Amino acid sequence: MPQNDITILGAGLVGSLLGSFIRSEGFGVDVYEMRSDPRTIECKGGRSINLALSHRGIRALKMAGVYADIKDQLIPMKGRRMHDLNGQLYTQSYGQADQHINSVSRNGLNKVLINHAEQRGVNFHFGYKCTDINLEKTSITFQNGEEVTSNVIFGSDGAYSMLRQKMEYTDRFNFQQHYIEHGYKELRMEAKNGDFAMEPNYLHIWPRGNFMLIALPNPDSSFTCTLFFPFEGPLSFQTLQSASDVDDFFKNYFPDVIELIPDYIEQFQKNTASSLVTIRTKPWHYHNSLLIGDAGHAIVPFYGQGMNAGFEDCRLLLEWGKELNFDWNKVLPYFSQHRKKDADAIADLALNNFIEMRDHVADERFLNIKKVEARLQEAYPDHWLPLYSMVTFSDLPYSEAMRIGQLQRQVMNGLSDGFDPKKVELAPLMEQFNSLMQDAH
Amino acid sequence: MPQNDITILGAGLVGSLLGSFIRSEGFGVDVYEMRSDPRTIECKGGRSINLALSHRGIRALKMAGVYADIKDQLIPMKGRRMHDLNGQLYTQSYGQADQHINSVSRNGLNKVLINHAEQRGVNFHFGYKCTDINLEKTSITFQNGEEVTSNVIFGSDGAYSMLRQKMEYTDRFNFQQHYIEHGYKELRMEAKNGDFAMEPNYLHIWPRGNFMLIALPNPDSSFTCTLFFPFEGPLSFQTLQSASDVDDFFKNYFPDVIELIPDYIEQFQKNTASSLVTIRTKPWHYHNSLLIGDAGHAIVPFYGQGMNAGFEDCRLLLEWGKELNFDWNKVLPYFSQHRKKDADAIADLALNNFIEMRDHVADERFLNIKKVEARLQEAYPDHWLPLYSMVTFSDLPYSEAMRIGQLQRQVMNGLSDGFDPKKVELAPLMEQFNSLMQDAH
Repeated sequence: MPQNDITILGAGLVGSLLGSFIRSEGFGVDVYEMRSDPRTIECKGGRSINLALSHRGIRALKMAGVYADIKDQLIPMKGRRMHDLNGQLYTQSYGQADQHINSVSRNGLNKVLINHAEQRGVNFHFGYKCTDINLEKTSITFQNGEEVTSNVIFGSDGAYSMLRQKMEYTDRFNFQQHYIEHGYKELRMEAKNGDFAMEPNYLHIWPRGNFMLIALPNPDSSFTCTLFFPFEGPLSFQTLQSASDVDDFFKNYFPDVIELIPDYIEQFQKNTASSLVTIRTKPWHYHNSLLIGDAGHAIVPFYGQGMNAGFEDCRLLLEWGKELNFDWNKVLPYFSQHRKKDADAIADLALNNFIEMRDHVADERFLNIKKVEARLQEAYPDHWLPLYSMVTFSDLPYSEAMRIGQLQRQVMNGLSDGFDPKKVELAPLMEQFNSLMQDAH
Repeated sequence: MPQNDITILGAGLVGSLLGSFIRSEGFGVDVYEMRSDPRTIECKGGRSINLALSHRGIRALKMAGVYADIKDQLIPMKGRRMHDLNGQLYTQSYGQADQHINSVSRNGLNKVLINHAEQRGVNFHFGYKCTDINLEKTSITFQNGEEVTSNVIFGSDGAYSMLRQKMEYTDRFNFQQHYIEHGYKELRMEAKNGDFAMEPNYLHIWPRGNFMLIALPNPDSSFTCTLFFPFEGPLSFQTLQSASDVDDFFKNYFPDVIELIPDYIEQFQKNTASSLVTIRTKPWHYHNSLLIGDAGHAIVPFYGQGMNAGFEDCRLLLEWGKELNFDWNKVLPYFSQHRKKDADAIADLALNNFIEMRDHVADERFLNIKKVEARLQEAYPDHWLPLYSMVTFSDLPYSEAMRIGQLQRQVMNGLSDGFDPKKVELAPLMEQFNSLMQDAH
C-alpha cells in the first residue's frame, strides 16, 4: 500500500490552501478530490457561486503568499444596499471608509489556490472518490480500488465529510447536524449594456421579514442573486410552484427586480432549492486524523464567514503546528481543543445574523443603533469596535467577539425608545460598557 | 425479492413489544435481529443488566396482554436508599405508600416479549445483520445476502440504529448524538447466605457529588451495582488503573460496599466502562420508515425512563394508528410530529436527574423540599403531583410534566433559607402555583 506523508481529503478552498501551508513546512502533501479538476471542467454543484472574502481570509491568503494571485478578481463591497418594497434604496456601511468585504468567485479562487499549491509541490489527485477510511490505520480506500496510508489525514471534505462520517461511529464522538427551515435558490442577473445592472460595490439586500433576497457582484458584471426562503409554510418554496405564483410573488415583494431579471419566472422554476446546515462536532480529531473547515463546523452563510473561518483554521493550524514543532500527536488535539469555541461562536453568530439581515436591517431602531455604534467607534476607536467589525475586520477570536458583542448589545438595549442617534451622549454608554467588561473579568 | 407487510429491525424490548401490538391489528410482522435468540444463548453486550419498569411501561405491557407473564419477575423498589460516607442510610420514598418502581431483568423481559409475540404470529429472524437499507424502495439487505422489501419498516434497532444511519444522509434530517462526560461500569454484588446483601425493595444510591454508585436488585438475590463516573479528569476511569488506586477509591468513597463485594478490585479492573449517549433526531420518519424507541431518542438512564418511554411509543403508535385507520402514510408523520416534544422532554429530564441523584439527594434543602412536596401532594392530591410522580406514576405527556415541574420549582425556589418543612404554610404555595399555571395558559 502506498505511504503518504500528509493526505488531504478535498481540494476545495480549504483543502487547497491547507496543502500550500503544510507543503511550505517541508511535508509531502497529497490531496484527493472526488470531483474533476476545476481548472479543466466547469465546476457545478449545489454550492454558492460567489462568496464574501474578508480580513480573516485575506490574512491567511497573504501568509500563504497567494493573495497577489487573486487580488485583481475581487469586487469590493463597502456596505449593505437595502431595497424596500417601493424600490427605494438605503445604504449602511460595513465599517469605516476604507473597510469593505469582497465578492469573489468560488471557482476562480479555487483554481488559483490549486495552481499555487501545485507549483509548490503539492500532488493533486482528481476524480478520487473515497469509499472507506480506517481511522486506526490512517488508511483510505478509493472507489478505483487504490488504497493509501498516511501519517496524518486532514478532512477538508466539506459539510458532508466522509472522514467525519467515519468519526461519528467512534465512541464518545459528539455530533450535530441542524438544518434551518429556510433554503436558498440562486438567480442570475445579467449585465445591462455591458455594465452592472445595479451599483456593484455593495451587497444588495431585499429584507422582507421572514425571508430575503441578496445579490453579490461577479467579475463579468452580472450579479448572483440568492433568495433565502422557507421550504414549507404558507409562503414557501413548496407553495410557489406555478408561473403565476412566482410572478405574483416577485411583483409583490421584489418589484424592482423584475426588469433586472427578465427571465425570473423561468429561472425560479428551473433552479433547485438547496438546504442550509450547521454542523458541530467534538472533538474534531481521532487518532491521526483531523477535520478542518466545513467538515468540522459548517455554518449558514449569513455572516459571510464560512470560507474565512476555514482559511483562519489553516493559518492557526500552521501557527500552532510551528509552536509544537509539528508533532502531529500534539497538534491535532491542540487544534481540536483550542479552535472549537470559536467555531461554535461563528456558527451562532451566523444563525443570528440571518434574523438581522432579513428583518432588522429595515428597522428604524436597529439602524439608529448602528449610527450610535459608528459614533462610538469614531470617538473611542480603541475601545468600541462594533460586532460586525470584530467578526469581519479583525482577528479577534470569534468567541471573544461574540462575548463583547453581547455586552455591547446590553448597553444599546438601554437606549430609550425613539432616541436620537445624533444626540445620544456617548460617555455614559462607554462607562457602562467598560464597567460590564470589567465585571466579566 | 420477498415482500413483507411490516418489517421491524431489532428484537429488543421495544421491537418485540411493537411486533405484538402491530400483529394484534392483523398485519403480517417480521422482526429481524442481528444478535442470536436470547432464549437460546445468554445475551451479552454493553447494555445494562436490569432496568426500572414503571407505570408507562406497565400500561403498555398490560395493553399488549403480556404483563401477567412478567409480573412475578419484578422486584418492587419503594424509594431511594441513600448511603452516606459513614455507611449511614437515609430513605426517600418515590411516591405514596402504594407506589413503587420495579427492577426487572432486561434479558428476562426480552424473552417474555419475544415468546408472547411469536405465539401471536410474529416471525422472528435472529442472526440477521442489516447491511444496507434503501429508504426509497423500503428494502433491506442483510449480511447473508438476503433482501426483503416491506410496506413499512420500523427501526427499533437502538441507539446505534442502522435505519437512522441511513436517514442521516437524507436532506434536512436533523440529528444529534451527545455523550456526557461520565461513563458507567457494572459490578455484581452476590447474595449473602442465600439472601439479598442489602434491603432489596429500594434503589440504593451512594451519591458522591460528581459521581455515584447505584444498585438494583435481581431475582437471584444479587444486586447489580453501577458506578457512574467521569471518563477523564483527576478522579476518573482514566486515573483509577492500579489495584491500589481502586482500593483507595472504594475505601474513601464506598467503605460500606467493600465487605458486600469482596472482589471489587478484580471486577473493577476486569469490567469495561461504557459510554452514555443522548440521541435526538427530527423527523423520525422518512418515506415508509419510522424510528422508534432508542433509535430515535436514546436517553441517559438517570430517570429510569428509557424502556418506559419506548413502550409508551408502542402504545401511542397503536392508538394513533387506530385513529388513523392504520393509513401508514398518515401514521408515520403523525407519530413523528406528535411524540417528538415528549422525547425531547424526557431526554432533558434524564440529564437533569443525574445531577439530582449524584449530588442533591444528599442535600438538606433538597430533602426538605421533597418533604414539603409530599405534604402538598397529600393536601392537594388533584393539584400537586411532584415531578418525579408525574414522570413515573402518570401518563401525562413528558413535555407537560416538565413544564409543570418548572413552575413547581419556581414556587419551591421561593422558600426561605432554613425553612422548616413541617411548618411551611401550604395554601400560599398552592396559590402561587395556581397563578403560575394560569399565566402559562
